[in-house]
Amino acid sequence: MRCEFKAQADAGPDQGRYKRTLPDEQIPFSATQGRTVFQEALTGGGMHSYFALAEQFQTQAEPTYCGISSLVMVLNALQVDPKRRWKGVWRWFNEDVADCCQQLVKIDKEGITLDRLAELGRCNGVDVVSVHADAHAESIETFRREVSRVTSRVVGDGVTGEALIASYSRATLGQTGNGHFSPIGGYHAAQDLVLIMDVARFKYPPHWVALPALWRAMQSVDADTGLSRGYLLIRANAPRTI
Amino acid sequence: MRCEFKAQADAGPDQGRYKRTLPDEQIPFSATQGRTVFQEALTGGGMHSYFALAEQFQTQAEPTYCGISSLVMVLNALQVDPKRRWKGVWRWFNEDVADCCQQLVKIDKEGITLDRLAELGRCNGVDVVSVHADAHAESIETFRREVSRVTSRVVGDGVTGEALIASYSRATLGQTGNGHFSPIGGYHAAQDLVLIMDVARFKYPPHWVALPALWRAMQSVDADTGLSRGYLLIRANAPRTI
Repeated sequence: MRCEFKAQADAGPDQGRYKRTLPDEQIPFSATQGRTVFQEALTGGGMHSYFALAEQFQTQAEPTYCGISSLVMVLNALQVDPKRRWKGVWRWFNEDVADCCQQLVKIDKEGITLDRLAELGRCNGVDVVSVHADAHAESIETFRREVSRVTSRVVGDGVTGEALIASYSRATLGQTGNGHFSPIGGYHAAQDLVLIMDVARFKYPPHWVALPALWRAMQSVDADTGLSRGYLLIRANAPRTI
Repeated sequence: MRCEFKAQADAGPDQGRYKRTLPDEQIPFSATQGRTVFQEALTGGGMHSYFALAEQFQTQAEPTYCGISSLVMVLNALQVDPKRRWKGVWRWFNEDVADCCQQLVKIDKEGITLDRLAELGRCNGVDVVSVHADAHAESIETFRREVSRVTSRVVGDGVTGEALIASYSRATLGQTGNGHFSPIGGYHAAQDLVLIMDVARFKYPPHWVALPALWRAMQSVDADTGLSRGYLLIRANAPRTI
């Protein structure tokens, strides 16, 4: 292990930051209200896809990794075999393994766009549909239908066949920061709430957000592309041959 | 990112391994049966501590890190501020940050014993009780009472004040490998089942195991110390001053 942190315990006034508080309109996962919403959503059938994602919930290891870390979480949750070793004898996805099919080294400095993340998913063996939230004929009703369908569906015993990654502006949600990716972990239909499994776990806990608010945050424009953000629908594909 | 994996896609016959299958008597978290057990345990009050741990579920990054990765998961779940920076402006526990209060570099090669892991917890600001499963006056009834109490308790809004890390022999459970650490995520009292949040996520999914079977696996002797394995009871302490 490297130990570059020790001196900082006595480093003086700038000690950095321990987490941020969510805006009032979002419900933290493990708060009393969040646990109630979870239990109701579970009973309502909107948490079927949660379990496989929860098994793979992870922290984005670098500030620009929210996209690739969300993808890694989904690839492992969909039980995609990377056909490449991670460590020791084990085949497993982490950011390095996922990146290696295209070597998108620019992620380190600049993050990744919605469509590049879709490409990175495809080259790792999943079907990916990339949806921009302001594209012609896309509507909140379509998004709601997809969220409802994907979160309530289980393919086989414990295997979820699909997953959604949201690409949105944190600023539109009243959070600090701007462009962000995270998987969608569940849906509470009666209250129209979506569970965001926020991969920046050092900053915000997973939280429930109103679906219309998330939709608005997905309609924001990514200045790097001039296109709106949106979401990825990811499907496990037929097994690849090596 | 480093890309040391690419060549292995064409590396010939030894492609490594994709996960292992749990013994029949253990119930995978996201399987149909696992989801039923989860829902019953939630209704039964044995999943209160689950939510904070689920927010921090993580993979042990190295083969010998099961102890320190379990501790990191618990420290973050108990919302302990490390008072040291992790990356950028953020204070957060990962294995490097947790290790830095004692610099237990030997973990890299040899893993860690139950009592050393307890020390590492204490120096990171939590109270830790280390219990060896064959010590005088320790019984399965005490363990069951602790599991029931800790999993059903929430201190404040979304803050769980205590957590348990089990130290056990995988071999005794019929799993491959031997000495292992993982946090306990929940309890189904009616069926006497414990949820193991296995940090070797590349190998086994989280799973429900009979409490008596886990107790037997905790009674195995660690050849490095001549003492039995057991469990750690970890409590969030008063805030430390820097």
